[in-house]
Amino acid sequence: MTELLSDTGRKTMLEPLFKAGWAMAEGRDAITKTFDFDDFTGAFAFMTRCALWAEKWGHHPEWNNVYNRVQVTLSTHDVGGLSAQDAKLARKMDQLAE
Amino acid sequence: MTELLSDTGRKTMLEPLFKAGWAMAEGRDAITKTFDFDDFTGAFAFMTRCALWAEKWGHHPEWNNVYNRVQVTLSTHDVGGLSAQDAKLARKMDQLAE
Repeated sequence: MTELLSDTGRKTMLEPLFKAGWAMAEGRDAITKTFDFDDFTGAFAFMTRCALWAEKWGHHPEWNNVYNRVQVTLSTHDVGGLSAQDAKLARKMDQLAE
Repeated sequence: MTELLSDTGRKTMLEPLFKAGWAMAEGRDAITKTFDFDDFTGAFAFMTRCALWAEKWGHHPEWNNVYNRVQVTLSTHDVGGLSAQDAKLARKMDQLAE
């Protein structure tokens, strides 16, 4: 069952993400990161790879794309904040962006 | 050469788009529309089709996706506002969303 991250979960799951460039979103229990690519095809290729994992895991990002830039926000609607699913998808997105 | 839409161009190109659900973006010389689909796969399939045309035409949308919803904003960076390329891409996106 999906649940809000506990204090321990936040420490173990979020701190490595903060070191990797993720940050808390302003005014929300959500994490956000901006990914920059060489051009639109790079950005959209990244989004496509992420989309397949998001759909497979049933957990989808909020994201915005302008040309070579993709800004992602992750939060879990069902629990009204961050869950382990967000940390998992964030790690996957970092891996897919490499 | 790409140039800002003239008054005549705005009348002929934008008015049909306004009838199709496009609107002027707040505080910018840009047009915006929100497209809703059944689910994430519908939304991302639409984005993928649009991405191929955008890349082919060298003219890219600003867009935001949250699950089944895609919010699009079109404007032409090079001219600092709306050009015929935005109207062309808007019409194509309407067609691809059908």
